[in-house]
Amino acid sequence: MPTIPHIETHFRSSASVRDVVIGMADGLTVPFALAAGLSAVAASRVIVVAGLAEIAAGSIAMGLGGFLAARSDAEHYTSERQREEREIVERPNDERHEVLEILESYGLTRDQSAPILAAFEAKPKVWVDWMMRFELGLEEPDPRRALRSAMTIAGAYVAGGLIPLASYMLMSNALTALMYSVAATIVALAIFGYVKGRFTGAHPLRSSFQTTVIGGVAAAAAYLIAKLFS
Amino acid sequence: MPTIPHIETHFRSSASVRDVVIGMADGLTVPFALAAGLSAVAASRVIVVAGLAEIAAGSIAMGLGGFLAARSDAEHYTSERQREEREIVERPNDERHEVLEILESYGLTRDQSAPILAAFEAKPKVWVDWMMRFELGLEEPDPRRALRSAMTIAGAYVAGGLIPLASYMLMSNALTALMYSVAATIVALAIFGYVKGRFTGAHPLRSSFQTTVIGGVAAAAAYLIAKLFS
Repeated sequence: MPTIPHIETHFRSSASVRDVVIGMADGLTVPFALAAGLSAVAASRVIVVAGLAEIAAGSIAMGLGGFLAARSDAEHYTSERQREEREIVERPNDERHEVLEILESYGLTRDQSAPILAAFEAKPKVWVDWMMRFELGLEEPDPRRALRSAMTIAGAYVAGGLIPLASYMLMSNALTALMYSVAATIVALAIFGYVKGRFTGAHPLRSSFQTTVIGGVAAAAAYLIAKLFS
Repeated sequence: MPTIPHIETHFRSSASVRDVVIGMADGLTVPFALAAGLSAVAASRVIVVAGLAEIAAGSIAMGLGGFLAARSDAEHYTSERQREEREIVERPNDERHEVLEILESYGLTRDQSAPILAAFEAKPKVWVDWMMRFELGLEEPDPRRALRSAMTIAGAYVAGGLIPLASYMLMSNALTALMYSVAATIVALAIFGYVKGRFTGAHPLRSSFQTTVIGGVAAAAAYLIAKLFS
């Protein structure tokens, strides 16, 4: 596989940022919202237990889920690549036609495409690389990505989830703890949204606002549901 | 943007499957694990309230998160595209050099690349399309994707989350309800994993096994944490 270093770096770093964002967005929001919801009906002690159980469950589910998603991306790439390698041998005319079609969609005439096709036929591996990327839109996944992705997502979830829970650990009155939890989490969500915006190229203040609103809406919904069903 | 219909369909359907998988994987796992954890220390009534609050919080957090992620992908594409459009006008030599480098990485000589470059210079829009896809690896996102993605993730989370909770709604003894919840959820996780495997091209039985293990590990961790801290 030919490597184009600056492209791979671009993909890799955005994948890690995405993992932190995935884990922390849910870690800051779901345990916060669950604790807020339970504040309507339970004591701090129960909320801390429920919150820690949720953090354990959520971080493991998301981390393992990320691990398997990354691994299945890798398997998908391998199986599609094997299919493409077979097709170039077994149905070369169909594959040639696909190359011409793709190049035509980018404005090349048959005459202009002919040397490219000739280059591909001389180097089947390059041809397969090209079809993977151009016909199927698939990048070769980094093999170490699965484990790193899992640890990043789970760690970010735990880090995020402990922030809203801290006040319940320190205060026995759930409604008092809720006020501190809301304050701490709003600050954390706003900072997280701002930093996320900086990394992903979105407008930081708008990102900060959006992240805080998600947390607030989820917490309000959880609170209402808990009130309704208790 | 030139369209290559079978490629776009391929990307779109796998995005929807991915949304269902994202929502249901967590929806089946986290409320199940939370309820199992709380079974160690609370009555069914509290578990149902906590479970419903978690489902509300989790589905909203994941759904809104998916909505904003899809929208920020679209914004990222637009801003990168504008940068690419500027660069072709302001730094055409750099961009020509990038095209030659990319084509070289696929085994084309300068002579073979020349007609492609000429075709690009005649059609700047096609050139930008090509750079977006080939240099940056970015597909133009479907504008309707954000809302559909949000609804799909949230709906799948709610559907998944109600399965482990059903038994707690029907039975007042939490430890009895836990047994039925474990049985129902293992069956649901196994079926979900199997179907997911069929859709994503992974081995269905292995996918079924993996999904069930994630749910089991998350639930066991939540149970242990709840026991430890209560």
